[in-house]
Amino acid sequence: MKKDIKSMINDLSKLDHSKMFNDDFLLTWEKTEDELKSVYKIASILRQMREENISSKIFDSGLGISLFRDNSTRTRFSFTSACNLLGLEVQDLDEGKSQVAHGETVRETANMISFMADVIGIRDDMYIGKGNTYMREVSKSVKEGNIDGVLEQRSTLVNLQCDIDHPTQSMSDMAHLIEEFGGIENLKGKKIAMTWAYSPSYGKPLSVPQGIIGLMTRFGMDVVLAHPKGYEVMEEVENVAKENALKSGGSFTKTNSMEEAFKDADIVYPKSWAPFKAMEARTELYGNRDFDGIKSLEQDLLAQNGKHMDWECTDDKMALTKEGKALYMHCLPADITDVSCEHGEVSASVFEKYRVATYKEASYKPYIIAAMIFASKVKNPEETLSKLLEANNVRHFQ
Amino acid sequence: MKKDIKSMINDLSKLDHSKMFNDDFLLTWEKTEDELKSVYKIASILRQMREENISSKIFDSGLGISLFRDNSTRTRFSFTSACNLLGLEVQDLDEGKSQVAHGETVRETANMISFMADVIGIRDDMYIGKGNTYMREVSKSVKEGNIDGVLEQRSTLVNLQCDIDHPTQSMSDMAHLIEEFGGIENLKGKKIAMTWAYSPSYGKPLSVPQGIIGLMTRFGMDVVLAHPKGYEVMEEVENVAKENALKSGGSFTKTNSMEEAFKDADIVYPKSWAPFKAMEARTELYGNRDFDGIKSLEQDLLAQNGKHMDWECTDDKMALTKEGKALYMHCLPADITDVSCEHGEVSASVFEKYRVATYKEASYKPYIIAAMIFASKVKNPEETLSKLLEANNVRHFQ
Amino acid sequence: MKKDIKSMINDLSKLDHSKMFNDDFLLTWEKTEDELKSVYKIASILRQMREENISSKIFDSGLGISLFRDNSTRTRFSFTSACNLLGLEVQDLDEGKSQVAHGETVRETANMISFMADVIGIRDDMYIGKGNTYMREVSKSVKEGNIDGVLEQRSTLVNLQCDIDHPTQSMSDMAHLIEEFGGIENLKGKKIAMTWAYSPSYGKPLSVPQGIIGLMTRFGMDVVLAHPKGYEVMEEVENVAKENALKSGGSFTKTNSMEEAFKDADIVYPKSWAPFKAMEARTELYGNRDFDGIKSLEQDLLAQNGKHMDWECTDDKMALTKEGKALYMHCLPADITDVSCEHGEVSASVFEKYRVATYKEASYKPYIIAAMIFASKVKNPEETLSKLLEANNVRHFQ
Repeated sequence: MKKDIKSMINDLSKLDHSKMFNDDFLLTWEKTEDELKSVYKIASILRQMREENISSKIFDSGLGISLFRDNSTRTRFSFTSACNLLGLEVQDLDEGKSQVAHGETVRETANMISFMADVIGIRDDMYIGKGNTYMREVSKSVKEGNIDGVLEQRSTLVNLQCDIDHPTQSMSDMAHLIEEFGGIENLKGKKIAMTWAYSPSYGKPLSVPQGIIGLMTRFGMDVVLAHPKGYEVMEEVENVAKENALKSGGSFTKTNSMEEAFKDADIVYPKSWAPFKAMEARTELYGNRDFDGIKSLEQDLLAQNGKHMDWECTDDKMALTKEGKALYMHCLPADITDVSCEHGEVSASVFEKYRVATYKEASYKPYIIAAMIFASKVKNPEETLSKLLEANNVRHFQ
Repeated sequence: MKKDIKSMINDLSKLDHSKMFNDDFLLTWEKTEDELKSVYKIASILRQMREENISSKIFDSGLGISLFRDNSTRTRFSFTSACNLLGLEVQDLDEGKSQVAHGETVRETANMISFMADVIGIRDDMYIGKGNTYMREVSKSVKEGNIDGVLEQRSTLVNLQCDIDHPTQSMSDMAHLIEEFGGIENLKGKKIAMTWAYSPSYGKPLSVPQGIIGLMTRFGMDVVLAHPKGYEVMEEVENVAKENALKSGGSFTKTNSMEEAFKDADIVYPKSWAPFKAMEARTELYGNRDFDGIKSLEQDLLAQNGKHMDWECTDDKMALTKEGKALYMHCLPADITDVSCEHGEVSASVFEKYRVATYKEASYKPYIIAAMIFASKVKNPEETLSKLLEANNVRHFQ
Repeated sequence: MKKDIKSMINDLSKLDHSKMFNDDFLLTWEKTEDELKSVYKIASILRQMREENISSKIFDSGLGISLFRDNSTRTRFSFTSACNLLGLEVQDLDEGKSQVAHGETVRETANMISFMADVIGIRDDMYIGKGNTYMREVSKSVKEGNIDGVLEQRSTLVNLQCDIDHPTQSMSDMAHLIEEFGGIENLKGKKIAMTWAYSPSYGKPLSVPQGIIGLMTRFGMDVVLAHPKGYEVMEEVENVAKENALKSGGSFTKTNSMEEAFKDADIVYPKSWAPFKAMEARTELYGNRDFDGIKSLEQDLLAQNGKHMDWECTDDKMALTKEGKALYMHCLPADITDVSCEHGEVSASVFEKYRVATYKEASYKPYIIAAMIFASKVKNPEETLSKLLEANNVRHFQ
């Protein structure tokens, strides 16, 4: 099996990832194709090494800081796993949800927590126009701190979900596709339906559909975004998807029909989200502390959702896909009809058929995050990976 | 001293612990005598190694997940210490007390947090019929996840206290007895009084008395369970105790007199608990969200307790024991009369005499937990321990 | 650069720090001059080693326990960083703010959490007469536990801020001065103004000004304590400062004029604090659970503060200092006029000029804490540091 790792390292050495060193990972569309491929390759190598019980620890000490401005179990565990795999100890920065940190406070806090921090992972997805902006403030602060001689190293950032993109999710999703379809080159020409689905809850973040259309259009896929009228996503991300498709030889189309999206699809990703305009309105209401307005908006949104209960991924709809056996995807947890709710995003029968597949889809996230950290903290990833392989320290000693 | 460790490793090699590998530790009575002895032996070896400043780290990376569905300081620190000793980093899964996880949710969450988890420790002791059942659901989920190729390793479980048993407590208690009486073989024929004692608080878990009678009957001891009428424990555990006693050549008897239990006892373990029937009723009330019913039940239980304030471990009662100097045990914290409350489980004078002994009793828990993990994660414990001994890496470098 | 570290180790070997081994760090004035200098030296060496990517990990396993009885981000991260640098994993003991632990409970809990704890860091600064007393109770408990054979090692304590002193802060502040003035010997004869400053919040702890006057008077500095009438600090610490000054050939004077304090000062440290008498009264009110009394006291204190809004560090006041360019210090976060509040401790213009300097001031804390731990856990620090240097393990492997 070791030969396999060596050949993957060899593949990695052909990709240009030099600019990833000492840099953040905030949006997939800020990265080159080579850089994205490097992340997949490093993630595969780290996973294979762990399977072969070879240590990939590159830190003897050092902190990975996590900052979750929204509840999180899955992403939290993935980030912790990734840091732990590389030798970093996670220290959580719990700001309290009520505290609005900005400007001076962000700059100061970012420096105060980073004296021995090698990486900072942030999830801040609740308010439109805020999350990604906040990450960039933190990034700028620690970069300056490093230049000013305050910080001995530049803590690099990993976006664990913002208002615009969810790169660790979309990249894990794609890692799963690469595995399922036997290689990144096989994704060319495949049709993926990123479609809205009904959920009895409201206000699910837009970062998943946006992340998917912003990433999957990079590799020649035919990406269809489907949702009822009124559930539009951020225009700027749609534009990113259009440009990507043009360059990659794929396509990006939109429809208001779930059936049309499913037709002949190789992959379907049915998932609820809130309309961008509504999220924007909500952000403003929160800014004005207009809690009555928020309540009323929530009621409206639930009522609006209620009109589209037929947007459910059922066996009938799955039958429309390529040979009736498209790959079903979900970032989990899914709203499963008759299991987690009365009416949901997906029928119990479809979900059960793909349950293990969705678990596998999720299993890539720790490695994707570890790879993002690896690429940003190691100057010559292929060289360092080769050295780790040669050192052959065991992860689990027996 | 190293010879000592070698001879302990030699003793270990004579025990059959092969089935512990890759398995959980949920109830002591599911384990063979050899398996229990193996845990004691490994715990002793790990403790001796630490005392001699020899590293017993077997994980270079990896997570130990803790899930506490009840407040915990002591068990939390013991679990963290055990994981840390072996090289695992603890990540807490904080589900929130209100959330009732079951079925699909348990299966999914168990997999989502376990991609890099080597061990999961769970405390879930509040509701009758729930805790142990939940642990088995988690165990089944990660076992399947491993078989399905979702998880690269099977995370093994350690029961940190459930509604039925509290194996890490009873095993630590017994490790203390082995030490105090100079060997497991010396416990044969010793009388231990597991007795109820008065407490001004209500609803203390049954897992301690159940754990004690379920374990101590394994090694030929004369186990007496004493409590006022109405404070019965789970019948199924009493049956386990009876069968154990039959097989081991010891005895299991019951009495409603604290004095009778103390008479000629070598060891006394006076501790409050709630009646099983009441806990069962409470579980149902919680299920029905009948909060008035719960309040009323609490009042009844406190009144019922109040009738048995004479069930206190005093100097007079200690005088009834073998030569007046039985070993007093408690899992801590104890309700000490005039210290932590007006009337409690034990008088200040008795407790103070045995205070240091109870601290020592508690000191075994981190090693017992570490030994349970060790036995489940290492195929040939004696071989691995020998290698660690030979490697002779220091724990604390000076 | 390695020569540099070697020469620092050589300097360290000339200092007597033998009594620091296996002892706590609670108050700077309990330590000898040599011992304080040893902490600075070890901190510098650890920092230089980290900059040169040399591991200073001395623990293969082991816990550092943190107990914060007040919110904390900066000190928490510093303590975690320090522990992590040396190889200890931090486990937080979250007692809940409401719980009043004392006597038996402290002794028991201290032992229960310390079976594998090498160090305990405590922040308990809210109530006069409580914090330091509590630390000594914990220290006594674990010392006894070690003697009684309960604990295999004595967990040593680091005072992360109490009601009397804030040694990790004052020592970091002084480490910054040593760096800025090019050596500890250059501090002799320098004038430092520790002055009260206006803040719109109330009840800031006294431990910072007390820590500063208790430490800076040790090294021949001219220390001026300035505050409006009614903002007196603890008398016993003033007496410590007086005695220190006598012995060190420096001086300790008091004034009720910020201007007078600033005049010709080499260093200014303008910072708000609450009057000692008021904090004492508040402690009693809390003891009596007199919440109306507390509210009324708070109003009085805010009103009292309001009379001294002219106690602000402005460009005009800075012009009074030595050549108009004294070093401005603050423990952060500062109340900055027009930035974090309408009227605060310092003008935006002064703060911005020294912002990076205050960040650097803060950057010493993880190393100061690590050095305190190092000195208490390693018998011959210079020997161990030499061995680490020779071993030359990398912190960040590439």
